[in-house]
Amino acid sequence: MSRVAIVDQCTSAFTKDSDLSVQELACDPCRKILEHYKDRSIEIDALILSTTSDIQYGSTIISEYLGIKPAISQRLDNLCNSGTNAIVSAYSMIKSGLCKTALVVGADIRETKGTKLVWDISRGGFTSPIYWAALFAKAHMRRYGTTEEQMASVAVKNRKNAFLNRNALFRKKISVDDVMNSKKLVGPIKMLDCSYICNGASAILLTNEHEAKNYTDCPVWIEGIGSSTEAASFSNVSSDLSFIQSTKKASKMAYSMTNIKPDQMDVVELHDAFTIMEILAYEDLGFCQKGKGGRFVSQDNLSINPRGGLIGTGHPLGATGVAQTVEICEQLKGIAGKRQVKDCKSGLVHNMSAAGSSSLVLILS
Amino acid sequence: MSRVAIVDQCTSAFTKDSDLSVQELACDPCRKILEHYKDRSIEIDALILSTTSDIQYGSTIISEYLGIKPAISQRLDNLCNSGTNAIVSAYSMIKSGLCKTALVVGADIRETKGTKLVWDISRGGFTSPIYWAALFAKAHMRRYGTTEEQMASVAVKNRKNAFLNRNALFRKKISVDDVMNSKKLVGPIKMLDCSYICNGASAILLTNEHEAKNYTDCPVWIEGIGSSTEAASFSNVSSDLSFIQSTKKASKMAYSMTNIKPDQMDVVELHDAFTIMEILAYEDLGFCQKGKGGRFVSQDNLSINPRGGLIGTGHPLGATGVAQTVEICEQLKGIAGKRQVKDCKSGLVHNMSAAGSSSLVLILS
Repeated sequence: MSRVAIVDQCTSAFTKDSDLSVQELACDPCRKILEHYKDRSIEIDALILSTTSDIQYGSTIISEYLGIKPAISQRLDNLCNSGTNAIVSAYSMIKSGLCKTALVVGADIRETKGTKLVWDISRGGFTSPIYWAALFAKAHMRRYGTTEEQMASVAVKNRKNAFLNRNALFRKKISVDDVMNSKKLVGPIKMLDCSYICNGASAILLTNEHEAKNYTDCPVWIEGIGSSTEAASFSNVSSDLSFIQSTKKASKMAYSMTNIKPDQMDVVELHDAFTIMEILAYEDLGFCQKGKGGRFVSQDNLSINPRGGLIGTGHPLGATGVAQTVEICEQLKGIAGKRQVKDCKSGLVHNMSAAGSSSLVLILS
Repeated sequence: MSRVAIVDQCTSAFTKDSDLSVQELACDPCRKILEHYKDRSIEIDALILSTTSDIQYGSTIISEYLGIKPAISQRLDNLCNSGTNAIVSAYSMIKSGLCKTALVVGADIRETKGTKLVWDISRGGFTSPIYWAALFAKAHMRRYGTTEEQMASVAVKNRKNAFLNRNALFRKKISVDDVMNSKKLVGPIKMLDCSYICNGASAILLTNEHEAKNYTDCPVWIEGIGSSTEAASFSNVSSDLSFIQSTKKASKMAYSMTNIKPDQMDVVELHDAFTIMEILAYEDLGFCQKGKGGRFVSQDNLSINPRGGLIGTGHPLGATGVAQTVEICEQLKGIAGKRQVKDCKSGLVHNMSAAGSSSLVLILS
């Protein structure tokens, strides 16, 4: 079977305020990608829109805006990992031979309904994600001695990375003290431990092995895919709050499709919705031993969240998984500018949904 | 590459009134399917929910209700052909080797936002689908002499078929006079020319060629898939209102994947949102010559909409494409009871979205 390549990628600047609709936001990175091929006729066989916003047949609306007529048009949601789910669908359609090309676009606005989990009554009145993040943080601190300063260091690192990313929402460097002194929201989580829901859109263009050379000299290959769903209710996600079960399962599945081991990874975009989630992900993705995540923050062998992660770049829910993938593609192609990680050969994307209810992992090379 | 089989199928009774939520409705046919395999452990690798209703991560919620942990969980929308789009995604995931099994469920409630196309300002104040159906009807009548009585005959046939379908919403037989004398809504469309948006849910279980025998002695194979998107705005769908461009393209693509010709088809479920749409579909799917659709209603070589179509069964938007597929599967397996079409070997599903903005065709055997 043909391999599946990502041959182009683009992301918009993420913003706090925007008058644009989801469909208008979505068009921006798509137009920039299509512009690269304006001198020849290319056909987009599938357009898949990832969003948590409620726009009926949004993918068809975007196709009309873009002036394309894809055979297949779908809007897709699985909360915060909608973006990588859309990539999985596009991968499957190409790998199966049903499509040659697919454009995946993730887009969301700050006011999306995806930010509060009103269905999950196991959360009581605590519908905002910060409550579960606080529980994970407390469990890890108690069991492994992880400190608030270690969590703060995650934010410092990701904000420092975002300083070099002109599309990032937060480009001001901060210190551990800044994080520690920021407003305590739900102990031990403080304001600067959190990512920020914002407006944004990102897109990638995928094609099969045969067609890839017609688009780029440096295709990025999807080598591994892992996905796992645990539950929708927070109370059913895990009986042990010191790790994310769905992330462990998804990464195991993704690694099993490749010969690439965790210690061979060069660059990673992982789902740091809160600083503690980055520490858990280090462990659940196999980059450090269980319980050692707090200390792993200070390592410098592996580049983690070079674009600034969700904390530095902002978190437009349906766009995030695509934006993470755009960054890994730019790194593997060697076009990441000031953020470029040296000698990038293998990269990983980790995209999670509500309290670890589900996780998706992509391994790219 | 492995073929993809539909190995089980189930539909709920469609209703006008229901206190059930979309996710509760969706569980009913899924539970009945899973019940068939309660004596052994089966794993569902993907659960794809088709709905136009706005339930964030609805597929993950349904997975929790069902007590399953699918690797992949997605909610998907493309208005009225969301259902067959979900089947296309499941097909792709299995065909590509990423999944072994997928459960596709379509579900919607009568109050879904999918019934009004508020984004499409090219419709002016005419956001309800009946306005475009009236334009198609007038064009076909003017150009080909199609009559209101011929349209009425579509409703009579589909209601007669629905009489034998215990899950159908409308089980009372009607006459051409009944249709002609029913309230004129938007000339020439009358009340009984219309399908009715309702509550309902349908599900199918798919797997690969190797696994199929573990589920059934009579797998139904997905032989052809065709899909086409024209536009989102009614004004851009077609400059010629006497046919549906997206249906013509989708059927051509589906037929090209198989050796099955239109005249070899034994049973068809097509998208009769309004009676005129069935007449257009006869022509656009290749069952009769252009302009002859009106007269084709009275043919009896090919069984069309044996469950009663959308007009007889009801139209729960996100469920419809799955419900159509359930019917064709039951016919091909020879388990359609009183509705059984003799010697069924090949069947076709035609599922359309908003004014023919996009169409999807499946060919099954």
